[in-house]
Amino acid sequence: MNTKNANETPYKTYLSENELPAAWYNLRADMKTKPAPLLNPATLKPVTAEELEHVFCRECVRQELDNTTPLIPIPKPVLDFYRMYRPSPLIRAYFLEKALGTPARIYYKFEGNNTSGSHKLNSAIAQAYYAKEQGLTDITTETGAGQWGTALSMASAFFGLKCHVYMVKCSYEQKPFRREVMRTYGADVTPSPSMTTDIGKKINAEFPGTNGSLGCAISEAVEAAVKMPNARYLLGSVLNQVCLHQSVIGLETQAALRKLGETPDVIIGCAGGGSNLSGLIAPFMGEKIRGEHDYRIIAVEPASCPSFTRGKYAYDFCDTGKVCPLQKMYTLGSAFIPSPSHAGGLRYHGMSAMLSELYAEGLMEARAVEQTSVFEAATMFARTEGTLPAPESSHAIRVAIDEALRCKAEGKTETIVFGLTGTGYFDMFAYGNYNDGTMSDYIPTDADLAAGFAMLPKVD
Amino acid sequence: MNTKNANETPYKTYLSENELPAAWYNLRADMKTKPAPLLNPATLKPVTAEELEHVFCRECVRQELDNTTPLIPIPKPVLDFYRMYRPSPLIRAYFLEKALGTPARIYYKFEGNNTSGSHKLNSAIAQAYYAKEQGLTDITTETGAGQWGTALSMASAFFGLKCHVYMVKCSYEQKPFRREVMRTYGADVTPSPSMTTDIGKKINAEFPGTNGSLGCAISEAVEAAVKMPNARYLLGSVLNQVCLHQSVIGLETQAALRKLGETPDVIIGCAGGGSNLSGLIAPFMGEKIRGEHDYRIIAVEPASCPSFTRGKYAYDFCDTGKVCPLQKMYTLGSAFIPSPSHAGGLRYHGMSAMLSELYAEGLMEARAVEQTSVFEAATMFARTEGTLPAPESSHAIRVAIDEALRCKAEGKTETIVFGLTGTGYFDMFAYGNYNDGTMSDYIPTDADLAAGFAMLPKVD
Repeated sequence: MNTKNANETPYKTYLSENELPAAWYNLRADMKTKPAPLLNPATLKPVTAEELEHVFCRECVRQELDNTTPLIPIPKPVLDFYRMYRPSPLIRAYFLEKALGTPARIYYKFEGNNTSGSHKLNSAIAQAYYAKEQGLTDITTETGAGQWGTALSMASAFFGLKCHVYMVKCSYEQKPFRREVMRTYGADVTPSPSMTTDIGKKINAEFPGTNGSLGCAISEAVEAAVKMPNARYLLGSVLNQVCLHQSVIGLETQAALRKLGETPDVIIGCAGGGSNLSGLIAPFMGEKIRGEHDYRIIAVEPASCPSFTRGKYAYDFCDTGKVCPLQKMYTLGSAFIPSPSHAGGLRYHGMSAMLSELYAEGLMEARAVEQTSVFEAATMFARTEGTLPAPESSHAIRVAIDEALRCKAEGKTETIVFGLTGTGYFDMFAYGNYNDGTMSDYIPTDADLAAGFAMLPKVD
Repeated sequence: MNTKNANETPYKTYLSENELPAAWYNLRADMKTKPAPLLNPATLKPVTAEELEHVFCRECVRQELDNTTPLIPIPKPVLDFYRMYRPSPLIRAYFLEKALGTPARIYYKFEGNNTSGSHKLNSAIAQAYYAKEQGLTDITTETGAGQWGTALSMASAFFGLKCHVYMVKCSYEQKPFRREVMRTYGADVTPSPSMTTDIGKKINAEFPGTNGSLGCAISEAVEAAVKMPNARYLLGSVLNQVCLHQSVIGLETQAALRKLGETPDVIIGCAGGGSNLSGLIAPFMGEKIRGEHDYRIIAVEPASCPSFTRGKYAYDFCDTGKVCPLQKMYTLGSAFIPSPSHAGGLRYHGMSAMLSELYAEGLMEARAVEQTSVFEAATMFARTEGTLPAPESSHAIRVAIDEALRCKAEGKTETIVFGLTGTGYFDMFAYGNYNDGTMSDYIPTDADLAAGFAMLPKVD
């Protein structure tokens, strides 16, 4: 709903740098049921901070386990870096609305105007800062499509850390230019599974010629961090700390909407590991939990990797090598790998524990969409709104368009807000397949999923 | 010079959409000596509007020949499109200043936050609008690195025009993803020289296996436009009309600097055909010509394609096929093709007639830089300021750094403004060569250049 004259709304609403949030918002503090604790896979007991600190930075562990502090101040060096590319614009999709002939007002929060091409930089710079503060010299991570690896390479260059990236092999081969961006920022990039770690050697031996997976790259990066003298592992999604850092997206969105006199009816975000979605919705979900306002909130995932809509809410491994703690989440099983024909990102087998709990409680909806319909939406968006979107973000575009068409059919003037997490400039291989008409859809069968569920660890 | 406290300066200064210029500034109106007229190559007489209208859109021709109207209103549909990505930010390069330890204040006007990845969209949307207004259905153009082709594809999609792009063959092969971006916006992309035009066939027969050149792709695009029933040819640089549209860059820069209380001492832009440079400097050069303020203005070009610094100021063909009018400009000869080892863009043999005249009158400086030093500057910029710059833009970064280091050596607090025309996300092949240490410099010999000069047409 809009209390002002809609004509007053500019295309882009930029907050000033002084209006940048001074603190991240920790949604867990407002949750009635907290996300289930991480478990030590050997003892099945909640992991301790000390155990986690072997793998992650100290301050990140503190944030990971903090379910009670509502506001966590953003350190000044992180804020200074944020000022280089934030606040990001909230954009009124006037031309998309016109093309759809919808009475709905569509807004999108655009996180792609930085070289990582996505929201990932919001957490990368925070985690790199904490690594630097702890006196580390090296950090390791995994990357799939490459946004997180790029973001962390940028953040590492800024703080003078050496960054070691394990990149899922099929992405490494399909996206050589992503690799070069990371190298330009001084990172080492290794295709995963590699022969540089024990787990990589084991996976290569078991599955010769494998294309790799995120779960497998995570295992390698964790092993590498633990074996290096002064290093830790940094993860770009799924974890509570990452969702915390991404709350800057939602806080800015909320502030910009208030400035415009708008209250969203529907909030839509794509979901892979869940960091962008949780960040976008955080303050709105907080209001919803506290009973201050009701919003429809929709998570969108690929039909080929349907954690929310067809997964099980259970404890599972976060990685293929089973070196990480167990997390309770919607999962397809840690061995699940989406079909190679799936090009649209969001291919992680699990989901943020926090979002999983919110979904289990019925506080949000989830929808699975097929990739040809996602690229159709992406192309329409590019041609009307100018920006060529990331395939990941285009999942949210697909549902925003569907919701806007529903408004048209029902004659409703609703306000739709979605997260445009990034640009697709390094995803043109997939766009090429779509342009050539050679892209296909893939939906796993129940039998495919049952095989994954059978391998879930026994907990309780 | 800054009249305010420097600490008040934000990283990014965004004008509001209401502050977008309502009119382009036509620098020619203030020039004491106007750019020399285009000549008909057959008669050696100034071309008429009627002759030009066979190739270009009517309104573009009017703008091309208008040396007297200082302000030309921006049509509302063009302004509406501008609002999707403009005003572009003026950014204070705090972290680059810190890394250099310079007392200079460095600002850059960033034109890369749109999917074309450059300033080219500013003229593309204007020209596409005029084509649509004239009732055309098809437009043709050439592209080298791909920014212009992408920009025109975006603009054509927006106005429902069919866009036919002739892409220099070596770029077509090195940058398949640029091609896919254009196709996503609905354009046809043909590698040039092709077998679809007479001039393409002729060039292929004369130079089998040629990599193509901008001059050759222009000839093909012009031929295609003239042969189609309802089409015209659109050019992305060099011409007066393009420089006119790009003045939006300089007008916004001037307005933002005034807001900050800053007056630049040095203004730096890269120069290929000259559209970005002329746009950035237009209002400042106007002040300089009118005697209101003196600025140092520096054009930066590749040492491997040194039109200003080693070219001749003479009438020459704008294209290899010699189908375009003759233009008086700094030129290396229409047959000049930079070495294939040159990866940094800015490879046109000639230069804007307007900039050529200003340079001939001593109103601006020019500097040629070698590409390894350009990529060194680009890498430093990426690591400190976050954004991975286009190789073209990095020519300006190189000289901005050199000027900032001069300020440091001389202990001078000058204000340096440069144009960051775009991002390098589609140029990772070249960055890869730099990262691998396999990039080499190439400077044409005097004998190389003499061969080009010997082929200049005889005029006067």
